Amino acid sequence: MRIKKKTLSPFKILAIGFATVIFTGATLLSLPISSVSGQFTSFLDTIFTATSAVCVTGLVVLDTGLYWSTFGQLVIMILIEIGGLGFMAMSTIFAILVGKKITLKERLVMQEAYNTFNLQGVISHVRYMLLFTFSVQGLAAIILMTQFIPMYGVGKGIYFGIFHAISAFCNAGFDLLGNFTSVTVINTNVVVLMTLAMLINIGGLGYMVWREIFSGITHKKMKNALSLHSKVVITISLILVFGGTLVFLIFEWNNPATMQGMSFPHKLVNSFFSSTTPRTAGFNSISNSEMSPAGKLVTMAFMFIGGSPGSTAGGVKTSTLGILIFTLISVLRGRDETEVFGRHLSQSTVYRAVAVFLMGIVIVVLGVTVLSINEVGATFEQILYEVLSAFGTVGLTQGITPGLTAVSKITLSTIMYLGRVGPLTVMLALAGQKQKVNIKYPEGKLLIG
Amino acid sequence: MRIKKKTLSPFKILAIGFATVIFTGATLLSLPISSVSGQFTSFLDTIFTATSAVCVTGLVVLDTGLYWSTFGQLVIMILIEIGGLGFMAMSTIFAILVGKKITLKERLVMQEAYNTFNLQGVISHVRYMLLFTFSVQGLAAIILMTQFIPMYGVGKGIYFGIFHAISAFCNAGFDLLGNFTSVTVINTNVVVLMTLAMLINIGGLGYMVWREIFSGITHKKMKNALSLHSKVVITISLILVFGGTLVFLIFEWNNPATMQGMSFPHKLVNSFFSSTTPRTAGFNSISNSEMSPAGKLVTMAFMFIGGSPGSTAGGVKTSTLGILIFTLISVLRGRDETEVFGRHLSQSTVYRAVAVFLMGIVIVVLGVTVLSINEVGATFEQILYEVLSAFGTVGLTQGITPGLTAVSKITLSTIMYLGRVGPLTVMLALAGQKQKVNIKYPEGKLLIG
Ligand SMILES: [K+]
Ligand SMILES: [K+]
Repeated sequence: MRIKKKTLSPFKILAIGFATVIFTGATLLSLPISSVSGQFTSFLDTIFTATSAVCVTGLVVLDTGLYWSTFGQLVIMILIEIGGLGFMAMSTIFAILVGKKITLKERLVMQEAYNTFNLQGVISHVRYMLLFTFSVQGLAAIILMTQFIPMYGVGKGIYFGIFHAISAFCNAGFDLLGNFTSVTVINTNVVVLMTLAMLINIGGLGYMVWREIFSGITHKKMKNALSLHSKVVITISLILVFGGTLVFLIFEWNNPATMQGMSFPHKLVNSFFSSTTPRTAGFNSISNSEMSPAGKLVTMAFMFIGGSPGSTAGGVKTSTLGILIFTLISVLRGRDETEVFGRHLSQSTVYRAVAVFLMGIVIVVLGVTVLSINEVGATFEQILYEVLSAFGTVGLTQGITPGLTAVSKITLSTIMYLGRVGPLTVMLALAGQKQKVNIKYPEGKLLIG
Repeated sequence: MRIKKKTLSPFKILAIGFATVIFTGATLLSLPISSVSGQFTSFLDTIFTATSAVCVTGLVVLDTGLYWSTFGQLVIMILIEIGGLGFMAMSTIFAILVGKKITLKERLVMQEAYNTFNLQGVISHVRYMLLFTFSVQGLAAIILMTQFIPMYGVGKGIYFGIFHAISAFCNAGFDLLGNFTSVTVINTNVVVLMTLAMLINIGGLGYMVWREIFSGITHKKMKNALSLHSKVVITISLILVFGGTLVFLIFEWNNPATMQGMSFPHKLVNSFFSSTTPRTAGFNSISNSEMSPAGKLVTMAFMFIGGSPGSTAGGVKTSTLGILIFTLISVLRGRDETEVFGRHLSQSTVYRAVAVFLMGIVIVVLGVTVLSINEVGATFEQILYEVLSAFGTVGLTQGITPGLTAVSKITLSTIMYLGRVGPLTVMLALAGQKQKVNIKYPEGKLLIG
């Protein structure tokens, strides 16, 4: 994977590319045309907003529905789409449009962006991905319009349909409903909640997995069509979503602050929604700060885990969790190798998963420490929640985002960026291309737990 | 490490042995002679107390200083000493006293209990360990008496000196000062705090490490005397203790609820004490529930990590953390193997560390979920704190222990037991001895974060 040329590494191009889009977006948002009041907006707030949009996080310091003008909202929507699909897909379209051939270097960058295994068919990959994305988003937008047009009239209804379809598919969590309340005001609208939840799940699973599922359906050989990666990602995702739904159903059933007053179908839909959204969409249909302790724990754990690689989601990823869980199971079964669905994983794959997981913990701990100094009056829970939300690019909050200090805003922007680009990618970019060392030290022994 | 005989596995003997001591202790504590009031105590409360003592946790539902009679307190002290040194040392002394030879099976059990690498010299190991333990405890008891006698008179002062020396060395965290306030009432007594902190650090590092340090001092070749295990454990412990001290010094400096009113030396000593005690002693010199968010995070993280293997401490252990951190560093440096001080670790060592770490997380998540149902009115933070405290056999609390429901008491007792005996040990005991399977599946690929 390491290139010996003196050019920028794929890691660096990816990292710099995201940063460029963020700065451009922040500049546009700071202009008077972007705000309802027609005034300049502080660059600190626009950097935070643009980072939150490009990293599809959804944490906002300024109310998306009330503060920003339609122009500002469109900028945010485009930043979300760029972030969600990746700027690489965009540059590929550009390359296709102007008829240029894609260079090997460009292909390598794309490979990193989508975490695919080989260079073959990256272009057709991107083309199909865009077709898939726009189809799903378009269909969902129309369904959402059937609900929003009766509520807000034709113009606003169409606009809201498109905006929220994009925001949900890209797992961005931005909403236009105002007053920082996300979708709690419409939490009895089953069509809206289920459409958003399905968009989030589809977007969060990753295009590659869907391509394999389609291929399986087309050729009627699902077993052969699914790669090991897809099997693991689907298994972990299903366990998390349905396990989470069950936890919310049990623990919020009698919680007067959340679901007590609801009918059973509404309880079910809101539980499913609450289980879906922390990985890593960021909409909320019930109050986050008034959930039961178990509900909060599941939400926080899900924010840390996030979605699947090559998707629109952040966090340490379902595959990382899967690798660690399968390693645990293999150790308990007395196996030497990590076994997964009749395959074993290489040592380097497992070690990489350990590294990603631990980097995630380190980032969260550092984030909580920094916010702890700067957010006087905020509780431990509020701060931990905010940092996990940023790292998983989730966007849920217990309400402290709008009042954050400058240092905290910068810290959370950095964490969102690390969570989106991938902590390991950033570290490897900073480290540069080390030469492979072939020294192997003698084995040492260590006692464990 | 697996024995093919039809006898009980070392894992099972160890697990059953601990359980037997707990039940015996609980029975004694439930008798009228054990309480000040001269009444029978409910078995639920005595099981909790005995488990807390044998697992050297220090969570208490009944005030150790006020509820229990001197007889009851002595039972608790003996349970702590048995738990701290391990019932294996006791059974070895018994074997030595009656002149019996120790069988291979007994040696294997001891090996498991102390996590040593080979069978050689286990007996002399235990003998030296007891000498070391009683020397340190005796010296510390005398130092503590110089402080306690002026406060409480000769009889009570001597008794308090012995009790707290044992409790601190064994990382038990039980205290006799009353009203569930631990050592906060004497948090300006530098001698007491430093003596307790040193006892905790000495006990928490593990006897094996100290034996190597002594050997290094005696032969003046520290570099050769220290095993890889000792180097890792000492390094991680030093980083945690001094890193933690710094965090508490910075974050509690101006906290009016904890250290604001103290002089600089007192701030320093209390920071050092606060950094030492969550791993896994359980005394507290400043208020836990009023700490800064950063202080709470460090405390909770330290409770989960715990002390070193083969020591009186619980948690996932410093060596487990060390292995994961060195794996992260090795991945970032582009190495294929986990490298530690010029050695590489075997794949199975790293996988075992992953398993222990993940089992810890699973236990904590399940614990929080159970307590969340049963502790109506308790906050997420209080519950998480309580469960982490039980798992790390720490004993710190945000105040909910005395009012716990029956289900929560049983759950926490189980978690203390798992934390003390080691989650992996328990799982392997339950799983029994699986035969080694030599099938190796073909390699599969997975995408990570
Ligand atoms: K999001
Ligand atoms: K303890």
